[in-house]
Amino acid sequence: MSQQRVQQVELLSSENDLYGGVVVNIEKPMDSEVFSPLLRASMSHWRQQGKRAVWIKLPIEHVNLVEAAVKEGFRYHHAEPDYLMLVCWLPKTADTIPANASHRVGVGAFVMNSKREVLVVQENSGYFKGTGVWKLPTGVVDEGEDICTAAVREVKEETGIDTEFVEVLAFRQSHKSFFGKSDLLFICMLKPRTFHIEQQNLEIEAAQWMPIEDYANQPFNQKEELFNYVAKICLSKSEKNYAGFSPLATTTDSGETSYLYFNSQDMKRHI
Amino acid sequence: MSQQRVQQVELLSSENDLYGGVVVNIEKPMDSEVFSPLLRASMSHWRQQGKRAVWIKLPIEHVNLVEAAVKEGFRYHHAEPDYLMLVCWLPKTADTIPANASHRVGVGAFVMNSKREVLVVQENSGYFKGTGVWKLPTGVVDEGEDICTAAVREVKEETGIDTEFVEVLAFRQSHKSFFGKSDLLFICMLKPRTFHIEQQNLEIEAAQWMPIEDYANQPFNQKEELFNYVAKICLSKSEKNYAGFSPLATTTDSGETSYLYFNSQDMKRHI
Repeated sequence: MSQQRVQQVELLSSENDLYGGVVVNIEKPMDSEVFSPLLRASMSHWRQQGKRAVWIKLPIEHVNLVEAAVKEGFRYHHAEPDYLMLVCWLPKTADTIPANASHRVGVGAFVMNSKREVLVVQENSGYFKGTGVWKLPTGVVDEGEDICTAAVREVKEETGIDTEFVEVLAFRQSHKSFFGKSDLLFICMLKPRTFHIEQQNLEIEAAQWMPIEDYANQPFNQKEELFNYVAKICLSKSEKNYAGFSPLATTTDSGETSYLYFNSQDMKRHI
Repeated sequence: MSQQRVQQVELLSSENDLYGGVVVNIEKPMDSEVFSPLLRASMSHWRQQGKRAVWIKLPIEHVNLVEAAVKEGFRYHHAEPDYLMLVCWLPKTADTIPANASHRVGVGAFVMNSKREVLVVQENSGYFKGTGVWKLPTGVVDEGEDICTAAVREVKEETGIDTEFVEVLAFRQSHKSFFGKSDLLFICMLKPRTFHIEQQNLEIEAAQWMPIEDYANQPFNQKEELFNYVAKICLSKSEKNYAGFSPLATTTDSGETSYLYFNSQDMKRHI
């Protein structure tokens, strides 16, 4: 029996994080019947060590271990196409586990030519399908993508037009838009560099340059309060009476670039 | 045999979505050996119907079905503490499955009293711990929470001060901040309603009212480009020379309220 007591217990390999927790990376295939006792022994060890959050990152190939982890008290934290992150809070105190990403971010692009015509599209799926409404090109900002880059990319993808980013004119925050997530839509002004429309995106039914007054006066834009404001802001911008937020690339201590968006017209006197 | 052909095949119950796909809700416990053939038969049926994305929302109690779904070709889409969302794209064409939430959203609060003193705090964990830097109160915007509400809440939680939301002065987008997610930080101006500081949050080491020039002139604010700009924007705002974006509550067709943030000073002439 004393032999048994000094026996080495095998534990899952893990790394400490900066917040008093540990992160388990499962890299090799493992049978769930091998995994369960290992996890149990490891949890007991981490509890003794006073660890806080235990994270398990499970690549989708190791889906066979999900059930075992949940049975040991883990809950989901977040998932990406290729992995699932599980977490378990060990202390008896309230957990300080950071929340999952909460927002999707989109862009709507206001692109006007020198004839005061706006670049507009009709979509062939979703809410606006078959409504005849001409709307600004819109799209989703990818994880890791800058808002100013996304706006230029979306206009190119939907209409073939090359543009230069100018300003964020406004943004709207809404909730419960998509699987309960919140949503931020940035209305951006871009300057066209080319003018010949070539639809390149399967989701677009039609695209055209449309006089800005016709765009703003569409019944839908008159009726929907939000679209009405956005149309008015675009009209105001087209008359050069409106200052939005323009992007400034800044570099952090660690050498990363991130954009600060602010009213640079008003700041010109100061910076 | 003809008998067999007309036999009703049992399928998983599902609802159509707006994008030509179906959503499966598993509400009752089910054995994975019952689930697998049902899912297979349902997939075949949906393929014949020309369906696009198939979504399965699995509450964590039904973790026993995750492996079966992945074996049938599903991948993870996203997860919350209490459920996992899986998706499978049926057509041969490239998928148009919407991305997972990509951003965490935070607020930084600029609160100034009539003596041109700014409300600042020192944190006792994270990057600024022990640096002696006085910074604006900051915090995370919860899923479903409005930016303007979150800013007021964070100031109250960290300092006990009641405030009224005025404007978004600027925002910063950065990347790879947390499990690879992107981050949006909104710098907000708030007007104080009370002035007596009571620290209420365990994460705050100290809080005080500090002359705005002293705040802006801290060595850290001088050195870090981003903080330097933010301090200058706050200075500019304190001299009333700066127009940010203020929130306007709008109501959609479906009766939901969402805020549009824009330069209302410039719009006053138009709306």
